[in-house]
Amino acid sequence: MTVTVVGLDADDTLWHSESHFAVTETRFRELLEPWIRGDDVSARLLDRERSNLEIFGYGAKGFTLSMIETALEVTNGDLPASAIQRIVDWGKELSSHPVELLDGVAETIYSLSDEFQLLLITKGDLFHQESKVAESGLADYFDRVEILTEKSPEAYCRVLAGSGIDIREFVMVGNSIRSDVLPVIEIGGRAVHVPYDITWSHETVDTSLGEVTWTQIETFSELPRTLTRF
Amino acid sequence: MTVTVVGLDADDTLWHSESHFAVTETRFRELLEPWIRGDDVSARLLDRERSNLEIFGYGAKGFTLSMIETALEVTNGDLPASAIQRIVDWGKELSSHPVELLDGVAETIYSLSDEFQLLLITKGDLFHQESKVAESGLADYFDRVEILTEKSPEAYCRVLAGSGIDIREFVMVGNSIRSDVLPVIEIGGRAVHVPYDITWSHETVDTSLGEVTWTQIETFSELPRTLTRF
Repeated sequence: MTVTVVGLDADDTLWHSESHFAVTETRFRELLEPWIRGDDVSARLLDRERSNLEIFGYGAKGFTLSMIETALEVTNGDLPASAIQRIVDWGKELSSHPVELLDGVAETIYSLSDEFQLLLITKGDLFHQESKVAESGLADYFDRVEILTEKSPEAYCRVLAGSGIDIREFVMVGNSIRSDVLPVIEIGGRAVHVPYDITWSHETVDTSLGEVTWTQIETFSELPRTLTRF
Repeated sequence: MTVTVVGLDADDTLWHSESHFAVTETRFRELLEPWIRGDDVSARLLDRERSNLEIFGYGAKGFTLSMIETALEVTNGDLPASAIQRIVDWGKELSSHPVELLDGVAETIYSLSDEFQLLLITKGDLFHQESKVAESGLADYFDRVEILTEKSPEAYCRVLAGSGIDIREFVMVGNSIRSDVLPVIEIGGRAVHVPYDITWSHETVDTSLGEVTWTQIETFSELPRTLTRF
């Protein structure tokens, strides 16, 4: 069946996101240097983020609260109030950072929208994601924008069913094998992986995946040519 | 035109929410008592919430970050780290509080669902709202769940258009005049107001509203009878 609908991830597929989190984490490591080693800061933060995920979900606000908790914990409370305010300010910066499209994304979206139905399928904080879509200048090119709490196979099923889309005419494109590739393949769809420079540790997957096949491209601009081969 | 579709707000219409925030705010006032008067704490917190709204949106995580900022500000940083951790813990409690349905809600929803298409239309944090819908035990009775960042007239239009619903067959039911009643009337729809004991200051409206008409009922259980009169 020919592909007629393209699902597109947003963060780190269309625009930079993880790089902003990485910059913030570097500052956070520096802030806590007097107390513990940078790598230990990162490890403790990741633990905290993971345990907070089921309470706060994904996104900059939960990340900020996890930084605050980690900071209180590793310093045994020996942290000046000004440091807490700096962390909150980083959280605000993360939540309101200007949207920077990745190279070639705008032109590629324009050209794809002539030929395909485009669905933006992203996860995370509703408010922040909607702001970014609005600011990206690309909103008019998407037939639909779906913001999910988790990109599970069931969530993809729901999105496709809600728009009356046959999984066989659908391909998902994104930077995360865990969120954009595997769940779509699990429900019988196809996927294109466009790696981003940085992957959040939570999104990495075991590489021994057995018999699973997807297409990997190096840059988003290669997408139109790749889709002609599906 | 007969009403065939009922839109239902969630927080403080189907289940308690604002009362949990109020309990937290009382604790927060007590925490800061050594520094400033309770009423001033509430006023400063509301200011902070309002200015953070365009960065964080609605919800418990943004509220928690606003409490932290307010606490740092009014104490000039003279606040023990343990107090910050307490605030974060309150935020977690707020984010994971068990869902308590308001009186008569479950039975009323069961009976309405036989006769009407039910749309849950709420605003706030996607992750938290979805968790509450799932936990409420009512999810199967809703034809659709829409979680919005803001309940503007445009947002209601989008929701109705997305489901092919004529505004004349629609009635919105909720506890907020600002979010559930006025925007729906503005786009030509009807609304039923079910007041909740507490209204967040941000949701209050000027009472001199001019020529606007809606129906007010005292308890959610009156809804089926009210709808027969539409």
